[in-house]
Amino acid sequence: MRQTIYIREEQVKELLPLSEAIEAVENAFRDKAEGHAIMPPKLIVPLPNGDFRAMPAYLPKQKVAGVKVVNSHPNNRERGLPTVMAILVMIEPETGFPLAVIEATYLTALRTAAAGALATRTLARPNSQKLAILGAGTQGRFQLLSHKLALPNLEQVSIWSLDEDLAWRVKRDLEPQLGIAIEVCPNPQSTVQDADVIVTTTPSRKPVVQNDWVSDGVHFTCIGADAPGKQELDPAILRRARIFLDDMAQGMESGEVNVPLNQGLLKPEDIAGELGEVLIGKKEGRTSDDEITVFSSTGLAIQDIACGAVILRKLGVL
Amino acid sequence: MRQTIYIREEQVKELLPLSEAIEAVENAFRDKAEGHAIMPPKLIVPLPNGDFRAMPAYLPKQKVAGVKVVNSHPNNRERGLPTVMAILVMIEPETGFPLAVIEATYLTALRTAAAGALATRTLARPNSQKLAILGAGTQGRFQLLSHKLALPNLEQVSIWSLDEDLAWRVKRDLEPQLGIAIEVCPNPQSTVQDADVIVTTTPSRKPVVQNDWVSDGVHFTCIGADAPGKQELDPAILRRARIFLDDMAQGMESGEVNVPLNQGLLKPEDIAGELGEVLIGKKEGRTSDDEITVFSSTGLAIQDIACGAVILRKLGVL
Repeated sequence: MRQTIYIREEQVKELLPLSEAIEAVENAFRDKAEGHAIMPPKLIVPLPNGDFRAMPAYLPKQKVAGVKVVNSHPNNRERGLPTVMAILVMIEPETGFPLAVIEATYLTALRTAAAGALATRTLARPNSQKLAILGAGTQGRFQLLSHKLALPNLEQVSIWSLDEDLAWRVKRDLEPQLGIAIEVCPNPQSTVQDADVIVTTTPSRKPVVQNDWVSDGVHFTCIGADAPGKQELDPAILRRARIFLDDMAQGMESGEVNVPLNQGLLKPEDIAGELGEVLIGKKEGRTSDDEITVFSSTGLAIQDIACGAVILRKLGVL
Repeated sequence: MRQTIYIREEQVKELLPLSEAIEAVENAFRDKAEGHAIMPPKLIVPLPNGDFRAMPAYLPKQKVAGVKVVNSHPNNRERGLPTVMAILVMIEPETGFPLAVIEATYLTALRTAAAGALATRTLARPNSQKLAILGAGTQGRFQLLSHKLALPNLEQVSIWSLDEDLAWRVKRDLEPQLGIAIEVCPNPQSTVQDADVIVTTTPSRKPVVQNDWVSDGVHFTCIGADAPGKQELDPAILRRARIFLDDMAQGMESGEVNVPLNQGLLKPEDIAGELGEVLIGKKEGRTSDDEITVFSSTGLAIQDIACGAVILRKLGVL
């Protein structure tokens, strides 16, 4: 009788390097754009202090399907637990056999960082040198690591957090590892000054970046807005920008554009398309060095399944 | 750091006796009827040869939430695998922490048998002596075991299967254990003759039981129909009967009543309500000894979560 394997977080860290996660997420986005992905909208169940979601998907070209189960409890830090924790169930499409169950808290952080880096690599000006990061939680940290891989000319990093301690901790932990000076800034405005790429990873419900701080040509990777009512950018920035989402329906409902769309400050026609469409050449990405580009990530089950597949292939299960 | 525990099938078999599963399912149905259950509709994803489903639920009174991931691949027997295999992820509501991952193939069979027995205990005439079972797959077998607990006066069992070998195997395996004679019948008509309780567990898409074979007073527990297009009873039986579902919306879409409702042979008003409403005394169940009663099971995530909770309490995790 075949056995389901259970994969602990430590094994995930060993078997899933960031570079391979980026490649896996790129393939998943390409599959989606080519119509080779089946992914119903997430199911969200409310809980005390937060919620949990069931995120199923099937990637026929990867020969694998699965469901991620993930929570969001914003006040978990007080209890010494991560805000977001996840379990990923991987399924053999031909039989439905549960191949593996993967502890996927680290995988979730990694696949989100991978999507951000992929978007930046695809949409930012190729010679981008200065990276600004707003928010220094788990995603601020992971996006910094993934952007190091996405930006070959990266020379300067500035970071800001509402909790300044968190930003100093990122500097202390990652400066030696990356070999790049990390400047902790006192406010968002000083952080984004002269930046080529701006990554937003805050839980904000009002704009953190104002339009008049932002020069032409900047690329934004927006991670924080993943639920209706959340936003990080002044809508005036979005109106200057060429905007891409990870998924049109989910992105318009809960991503960076959801508030301005609801307020009538942005129209669905103002959104250029999905990142995957740029990757497969169906849509043009950045059209000039002066253009502002925006990628809004809400997080897709296909990213999780694709990263899980990397691990299962290494273990010989897939 | 807290660890998620992984519970193998063998441990489930030890920790979850059928009698406790029936009690847990009863509590879950009561909670639902009292408005203490949060359960969005299942998400179904098509796969080659079958499909898989994500079934989330939250039971506030049990202080637990979770998601069951389960497939349905009708031709799996050819590959030496069960048709239905499942994994259950159990979540702590206050934090979203994944308390446990449970191998839930056995649990799924058990909780379905528990719902069937609960319905029979609630709706059949108390002195019922003869049980007929149509279909001798996993559910035929489990329903026989659970009905032994539900029917204190059980004296006779008859069983039929399209694959007669399966029925003989049930007789061989369970007759000694139950201490009751099991008669293998050549066809559905001879099986249901004089039965007080009829349990249907076939994958049929046309009626298996005809109206003129059925006397007044019989109770039906219908398990097989769990998808649009499936049915096991002649619609004329349903028109004579007092009908209860596990869940109104899901039951009308995919349970025993779905085909006759679609054909206009039955109206939504012809359905008396949910089993849970009878359990809490909100609706009357059987109203006379001459009445035919029908329970249609489609399977609810709250049954899985409630059974998972029994296991976690025994392990001290809940």
